[in-house]
Amino acid sequence: MKSIQIAHGSGGQAMQQLINDLFMQAFANPWLAEQEDQARIDLAQLTASGDRLAFSTDSYVIDPLFFPGGDIGKLAVCGTANDVAVSGAIPRFLSCGFILEEGLEMATLEAVVASMAQTAAAANIAIVTGDTKVVPRGAADKLFINTAGIGAIPATVRWGAQQLAAGDVLLVSGTLGDHGAAILNLRERLGLEGDLQSDCAVLTPLIQTLRDIPGVKALRDATRGGVNAVAHEFAAASGCGIELHEARLPIKPAVRGVCELLGLDPLNFANEGKLVIGVRPDAADEVLEQLQRHPLGRDAAIIGEVSERTGVRLAGIYGVKRTLELPHAEPLPRIC
Amino acid sequence: MKSIQIAHGSGGQAMQQLINDLFMQAFANPWLAEQEDQARIDLAQLTASGDRLAFSTDSYVIDPLFFPGGDIGKLAVCGTANDVAVSGAIPRFLSCGFILEEGLEMATLEAVVASMAQTAAAANIAIVTGDTKVVPRGAADKLFINTAGIGAIPATVRWGAQQLAAGDVLLVSGTLGDHGAAILNLRERLGLEGDLQSDCAVLTPLIQTLRDIPGVKALRDATRGGVNAVAHEFAAASGCGIELHEARLPIKPAVRGVCELLGLDPLNFANEGKLVIGVRPDAADEVLEQLQRHPLGRDAAIIGEVSERTGVRLAGIYGVKRTLELPHAEPLPRIC
Repeated sequence: MKSIQIAHGSGGQAMQQLINDLFMQAFANPWLAEQEDQARIDLAQLTASGDRLAFSTDSYVIDPLFFPGGDIGKLAVCGTANDVAVSGAIPRFLSCGFILEEGLEMATLEAVVASMAQTAAAANIAIVTGDTKVVPRGAADKLFINTAGIGAIPATVRWGAQQLAAGDVLLVSGTLGDHGAAILNLRERLGLEGDLQSDCAVLTPLIQTLRDIPGVKALRDATRGGVNAVAHEFAAASGCGIELHEARLPIKPAVRGVCELLGLDPLNFANEGKLVIGVRPDAADEVLEQLQRHPLGRDAAIIGEVSERTGVRLAGIYGVKRTLELPHAEPLPRIC
Repeated sequence: MKSIQIAHGSGGQAMQQLINDLFMQAFANPWLAEQEDQARIDLAQLTASGDRLAFSTDSYVIDPLFFPGGDIGKLAVCGTANDVAVSGAIPRFLSCGFILEEGLEMATLEAVVASMAQTAAAANIAIVTGDTKVVPRGAADKLFINTAGIGAIPATVRWGAQQLAAGDVLLVSGTLGDHGAAILNLRERLGLEGDLQSDCAVLTPLIQTLRDIPGVKALRDATRGGVNAVAHEFAAASGCGIELHEARLPIKPAVRGVCELLGLDPLNFANEGKLVIGVRPDAADEVLEQLQRHPLGRDAAIIGEVSERTGVRLAGIYGVKRTLELPHAEPLPRIC
């Protein structure tokens, strides 16, 4: 079985061959083809679609590498693309840094790279520059990926959590906790069956439907830390509070099952394809309709509102409100 | 002793605290202060200095984390800044992704972050967006960093290895192999004394002195794989060959000592602050003078030329030429 050797990260022939045979083929695009130390992107191409550059990065260390609904490669494209896209930008270019463990099966790397290439192509994103490091056995666990992404934010879009004010409405674009529950089921060998799939997706097409709706104020994708983390970020940035309504939270029965089994709260579970959106009250219905019309937003719901009273609270099914703290730690390492 | 816990990468309170107490303080800048999922950079700021965006990334896995002349944090700023700068761009913005091993001493991370902050500030580079992942003990070795960098390439600068032609002259900006020899001495416990220091430096100021010299055609920084790797890249891109002259290679006696002891070639050793420059023959003297006038280029030398005959060759001290193959692997993993 062909596997990754230290030589694949050495700057010598083996590395050049890996670059030419695998990365250049899979990610083929004119920027990468130049084989310079940096991609060179016409700024005119960026200024044609916006006045600010959105720039974001994430490293991906998820375990296991492959899971229902995706793999680390798909995640590395979706996650960073979404962090760029929630600014209103269309993510266009990604960098990609691999850290590989000596002995990793070449077939595993090939499958991950193919998945990255496919996800990027479907989202019209070019992977234009990259780097490969190989560390000896035991110095890393199989495969880590870092991506950084850029795109231009249209001058007309000025989203930001600081604009949120008391009375604004919070929506979520779909069911909560799908990614976290899928990984938890797999990793902890819960053996639960049913609809446990990561929601890993590039959200650009869904976000673009919101760009021209006046009254949309702030977008985040609810990844690590879940909707609860975004609620706390929104509260901190706006100086207001957030009230969520338990009965309105869209949660799949299978995800609810995982949570009940383990005594965990789906509000803290990671998502990889879900937006939290803060809007002016008069825009809420239009935004909800727009979201639900899109396949990525079919299960969208209004889940709460911004309050004058600070803090994040959850109103239970029987009307009792309780404070939602940001947990000290999520129960699950290497969730993304 | 305070150390990194899984919670520091969880998206919860512990992570927020690490971000606020360490990263936001050390890297303080207006882009980071917005605390959005992405930095938002005025495109006007970039278009004012160029017409193309240079975009590059590298991951850093060097072992040990601290070495004479630098540390992994300094390296993570210098390395990516240089990959951007060799296009002629002034690197202005960096992203930064940390992968931390559970149990890493907090003081170690703090020292690395302080070094990054200091190096970036000295080079007028802002670290504007970032990410932190923590993996359980044994899933990574202490600390890995990825940085991605951007800057604008002036419209007047059109450097590229494809422009090299037979007769062009190759220069190097200083002594070869300093970084590789310093790490090798440390890692293999050779115990050699003398001038064994990494040359780790941001090369922007040196590169800027070359921007307006007509006849400068191509720049690379000679990192992994050393000057030999750059020679092969230049040869492949231009369709020509490269001839280097052994007697002209500037090499410190201590580095030569390490190489002789181990039977290794300094041409294959990594540098972290050295340029290889391809220029028109009539520009060679001016470029050499310009380089030597700058502290980062004091030991610059003309080391060879582009030839019609393909392949990379080294002319020995007694005039005999031998072919330089790109080695299958560099002798040393985790050199950067």
